Amino acid sequence: MIVGDKAYQTVWIEGSTVRMINQNLLPFSFQIHDCPGYWDTCMGITDMTVRGAGAIGAAAAFAMAQAFLEAPAIDREVFLQDAKNDIESTRPTARNLFYAVEKVYQAGSLSAENAVFEAQKIALKDTHDTRMIGEFGNELIKNKGRILTHCNAGWLAFVDFGTALSPIYTAFKSGKEIFVYVDETRPRGQGARLTAWELMQEGIPFTIIPDNAAASLMAEGKIDLVIVGADRIARNGDVANKIGTLGRAILANTFNIPFYVAAPLSTFDEECKTGKDIKIEHRSQDEVLYQDGIDANGNRVKVLVCAPGSTAYNPAFDVTPAKYITGIITEKGIVKAHHQSITALLKSTDDGPA
Amino acid sequence: MIVGDKAYQTVWIEGSTVRMINQNLLPFSFQIHDCPGYWDTCMGITDMTVRGAGAIGAAAAFAMAQAFLEAPAIDREVFLQDAKNDIESTRPTARNLFYAVEKVYQAGSLSAENAVFEAQKIALKDTHDTRMIGEFGNELIKNKGRILTHCNAGWLAFVDFGTALSPIYTAFKSGKEIFVYVDETRPRGQGARLTAWELMQEGIPFTIIPDNAAASLMAEGKIDLVIVGADRIARNGDVANKIGTLGRAILANTFNIPFYVAAPLSTFDEECKTGKDIKIEHRSQDEVLYQDGIDANGNRVKVLVCAPGSTAYNPAFDVTPAKYITGIITEKGIVKAHHQSITALLKSTDDGPA
Repeated sequence: MIVGDKAYQTVWIEGSTVRMINQNLLPFSFQIHDCPGYWDTCMGITDMTVRGAGAIGAAAAFAMAQAFLEAPAIDREVFLQDAKNDIESTRPTARNLFYAVEKVYQAGSLSAENAVFEAQKIALKDTHDTRMIGEFGNELIKNKGRILTHCNAGWLAFVDFGTALSPIYTAFKSGKEIFVYVDETRPRGQGARLTAWELMQEGIPFTIIPDNAAASLMAEGKIDLVIVGADRIARNGDVANKIGTLGRAILANTFNIPFYVAAPLSTFDEECKTGKDIKIEHRSQDEVLYQDGIDANGNRVKVLVCAPGSTAYNPAFDVTPAKYITGIITEKGIVKAHHQSITALLKSTDDGPA
Repeated sequence: MIVGDKAYQTVWIEGSTVRMINQNLLPFSFQIHDCPGYWDTCMGITDMTVRGAGAIGAAAAFAMAQAFLEAPAIDREVFLQDAKNDIESTRPTARNLFYAVEKVYQAGSLSAENAVFEAQKIALKDTHDTRMIGEFGNELIKNKGRILTHCNAGWLAFVDFGTALSPIYTAFKSGKEIFVYVDETRPRGQGARLTAWELMQEGIPFTIIPDNAAASLMAEGKIDLVIVGADRIARNGDVANKIGTLGRAILANTFNIPFYVAAPLSTFDEECKTGKDIKIEHRSQDEVLYQDGIDANGNRVKVLVCAPGSTAYNPAFDVTPAKYITGIITEKGIVKAHHQSITALLKSTDDGPA
């Protein structure tokens, strides 16, 4: 997607150097971070210079390919196995990462060039899938449509295009007049920071709203469609996503507004029967108690925004029951959020995680 | 209520000096601001050193009484009329203020002492009414009850006790084991700042939650009761209150959790037939784009927390339809949120605004 006047992906390889947008600096500064060796790329994943399921998968694939380029002739197998372990340890809960590393590891047995080629293919498939989500999702967006989105399920979380934002990009490029309401998405503010930044780069009209304002916008008839991403989808269509998603789904349902989830097939977890099987991560209370941003001098500063001495409760995700979800936009088309439809869709494809 | 080891009201008069808690410094610093003359008290209202309907009404009453104490023998009437105009101009949308100033102005025709007495009576009535809200609301709170509240409808907004928090204080003092979930209440964070501060002073167990977490807490059965305040209540029971209230009401309704509004009778607006008649104030987008707090050195700092160049949409209130409200807790008892009940309640009393 566009930044300034140039097209970017979140992560790519040039020669033997992996390059990535430094997402830790966004939205206040845009810089490309270079990783000359696989270990540098590992560090880039660990410290969240690159983040988001799709982008992490591609970065890990590139790191594995770098290891093949770097591997010495002597003890080559030991070096490669160690490198694989290093890469897999960067973000141990990222499912895409293991799949991607394994694929490149196997492809590398032929040649280092083949490992690079395989990593490129993984990044390309991510790009293709999220672009297809945009194509299918675009059909849901009417001209003059006003869309609400939550958190950041944009291209910064993938190699390109993204999930929830991909239909919005496609609709805008196809000439539709659209407007996006961006949920701030406290406590980490991914909406106000990343989604807002993405939309601004593409010139798509938007405004940030406090999470508290979604209900009144819906009540006033100002929202035509809600699209969000997903962290994990159970077999029955229950969706785990950023905290606040459940609230938006119930509100959309109350006001008869279509509520769609956009996610690649790799998000469906065949081992989760229902949302009850999904364990919810709880994060540090400091994310609620403090806010970081830039002060009047342009310095990045963290400030305490609550009554000193308070505690905070900070679940990172919630589970939205399938009954509140109008449909799930995937790279293979839009599917209803119930067991049979999802099973049929997953059977029709054996690509594995994207 | 208690601060440290001492009982305070938000505003009171000592001799001819009006003293008020400086709410602009909360929750980071607790200081008493002295207003030696009526003009100083006007400034305290204007710059929000004192805020909240009840507290503003009492402060304005005290300011009018101060004017009588200060008034010269020559041109006394002109001085008093000018002072009345000055006080009425401090916060021209505060309904209580006009009522309170008029009462004290009339009482002062007898003597300056009588003006002071009348102002004391107004503050006392506010204290009495909010204490009664606590008594009636307490009946709704079970032992081991877990209560969600939004924004700050505590004693800092009144002379003492508050509205939504008053039943919580009464329940706690009566020995019930309770726990309070405090909605952060973005963008201005009155929950995380003021409500959290109040509860901490009283030693009531609580935790702050991001506004986004309310739905998942309700879904997990962690909330037994929701109590919020009100800025204005229409004749049919529709309630205007801090942005986000509507969302909480719909969620509570979805999960069959009782949703109560606590407000003195003065909050009922006989000129508003329904919520449609209530004009919603929109506030500066900077409240969303920036956050202020204290940095590591204890300095108060404002930081930009959004993508630079973004706009934000910032409605300060929303309207909750009566159908989502289980009941309204007033100083005269708990009333159902519909036209007939409200009309009967208002007819049974002709006290005027508290």
